[in-house]
Amino acid sequence: MRAAVCRHGKIVTDIVPDPEPKEGEALVNSLMCGICGTDLHAFKHSDQLMDAAKRQGTSPMFDPAQDLVFGHEYVAEIIDYGPNTQGRFKAGTRVVSMPFVFTATGASAVGLSNAYPGGYGEKMALTEALLMEVPNGLSTERAALTEPMAVGMHAVVKSRINPKEEVPLVIGCGPVGLAVIAALKIKGAGPIIASDFSAKRREFALAMGADIVVDPAENSPYKSWLDKVSPDNDGGNALDAAMGLGGAMPGAVIYECVGVPGVIQDIILNSTKDARIIVVGACMLTDNFEPWDAINKELSLQFVVAYAPEEFGACLHHIAEGEINVDPIITDIVPMDGVAEAFTALASPEKHAKILVNPQLG
Amino acid sequence: MRAAVCRHGKIVTDIVPDPEPKEGEALVNSLMCGICGTDLHAFKHSDQLMDAAKRQGTSPMFDPAQDLVFGHEYVAEIIDYGPNTQGRFKAGTRVVSMPFVFTATGASAVGLSNAYPGGYGEKMALTEALLMEVPNGLSTERAALTEPMAVGMHAVVKSRINPKEEVPLVIGCGPVGLAVIAALKIKGAGPIIASDFSAKRREFALAMGADIVVDPAENSPYKSWLDKVSPDNDGGNALDAAMGLGGAMPGAVIYECVGVPGVIQDIILNSTKDARIIVVGACMLTDNFEPWDAINKELSLQFVVAYAPEEFGACLHHIAEGEINVDPIITDIVPMDGVAEAFTALASPEKHAKILVNPQLG
Repeated sequence: MRAAVCRHGKIVTDIVPDPEPKEGEALVNSLMCGICGTDLHAFKHSDQLMDAAKRQGTSPMFDPAQDLVFGHEYVAEIIDYGPNTQGRFKAGTRVVSMPFVFTATGASAVGLSNAYPGGYGEKMALTEALLMEVPNGLSTERAALTEPMAVGMHAVVKSRINPKEEVPLVIGCGPVGLAVIAALKIKGAGPIIASDFSAKRREFALAMGADIVVDPAENSPYKSWLDKVSPDNDGGNALDAAMGLGGAMPGAVIYECVGVPGVIQDIILNSTKDARIIVVGACMLTDNFEPWDAINKELSLQFVVAYAPEEFGACLHHIAEGEINVDPIITDIVPMDGVAEAFTALASPEKHAKILVNPQLG
Repeated sequence: MRAAVCRHGKIVTDIVPDPEPKEGEALVNSLMCGICGTDLHAFKHSDQLMDAAKRQGTSPMFDPAQDLVFGHEYVAEIIDYGPNTQGRFKAGTRVVSMPFVFTATGASAVGLSNAYPGGYGEKMALTEALLMEVPNGLSTERAALTEPMAVGMHAVVKSRINPKEEVPLVIGCGPVGLAVIAALKIKGAGPIIASDFSAKRREFALAMGADIVVDPAENSPYKSWLDKVSPDNDGGNALDAAMGLGGAMPGAVIYECVGVPGVIQDIILNSTKDARIIVVGACMLTDNFEPWDAINKELSLQFVVAYAPEEFGACLHHIAEGEINVDPIITDIVPMDGVAEAFTALASPEKHAKILVNPQLG
């Protein structure tokens, strides 16, 4: 089959072996596949991934010296089935799934392992049991946003935000931050205050449901949050706050959606006492922070990744029902030959949020 | 009055002005006062405290260029009262309190501010409303452990450990770790697995209620925890664990009671998926960590400090009732002139846990 292949640090279009569906797997055509920040991370920072695996004593997700076909935000179409399958969906049915396969030796990641090519190739082998049918009437383009939206849904579910007592602040409005905003809206939390240096990304944030957007070059997002939730609160001193003398104020749930070193410490330093920080951004570099600043405010950090099946299914449903409108953030659809260029284009936040790849084109 | 004074980076015994009880304050004799790691931190790292205040935009707790009388783990005796007080306790009554005073301009720390000398001086002025009477039959020495035990109680309460589903691991068995162990025992959590490089501290840990102690120079405390809770678990690979394929296992609640750079990352790297890390150790230096390691395991970090009044009162009660036996960790009682030497002696973990100062003695 044809595929956009990551080979020796470059993306090239080439012929690679067709995937063969093994026990419990379906063979599918990839119809549409979003480009994810994780692809860009893995493409640029494969050394860090290797280091992390070494440090953690685990097998690396992939070997960068071998061919890799990225793409884990896919919508696919059933072609056929491997051995020991149920044939749950007839050929031609459109499906999505969490990008994992289960084999006799454990789980593998689709589109982030050498053995399981992802959605930037024409075909994939996927675990049948994980497939979810795309409802009639839901466009393939919109369905392709299920996976990235599930990342935000998981972060919001895992944060256990209580909309009656807590007010969210979203730091960073790239695809991850936008998904968090959409999930907060579904959850009924607000006002949603969101911050990004990019004017375009602040527009995307408003389109996804943010109530207030802040340019951190002009205003502190933490001050904007405080002004909104407690206009009369002057902050007080730290010990007063520690002794509960600062007056009643909603709790802050701060979603870190940037994923570069320094952002966590910036949040720690500027957040209110007892703030709960949810780290959704995936920083692959060593980071610094000041424990003393976090101790004095009794902050908590919850690191999150991926999603549960029910969160994935809920996002497919919300998109199908129009409860999450993903149209404003689909900024381009490119053919297979356009993947390399799209990787570069995504570095500019002033134009793109989500670029989809149609691997059946070019 | 006489006091052990911190002056220009040294501890000296000298005559300082008597405290004068202001509105709402009682004048007391200090009968006994424990030396706390925070005193040693503040003594050694006053520069870091100044830096932190600057960074945080708050007033520093104290000015190291001026006299400071440390001591916030005190048992005191009522002498008299200032204006607008209720006279809740008659003269001679023994009391403890959270080491804070409330004034018209906010809260101050007793024994960590220049304005409110602590328990290493003969007398103190304390907020009457915070005083708790030491029950008859409870020795002054034991009552002096109320404050440090409350630090552990708060950490355990704040951790919301569920003894039916979670198993604790205590990293570091200095006074903070020992207090956490005592509070875990009260809470009914266990087996309590505790780790320290010092043989003496491991003895203290067993005396305070640890079930298993580990020397990290010989065995990984994380492996010891895993062996205890799930002898058949081979750890599996990260993705299996992420997909819930690792088999049922209790959750880990890991109490960081060391407070030096690098410990948090060591816990992050070695803990099991979904572990909850409670940071009780007070690290005043910049620390490094790898967010990616915490993300993959969806860890959480809860930073904690101090205690609530009900936790403080509960510890006084538990000590009085013999439910927390603090005798094994009171390793010395020194006169006021012995404070400087005791600060030095506490650097050696092979001898001391808690040294008490009797400021009424020389």
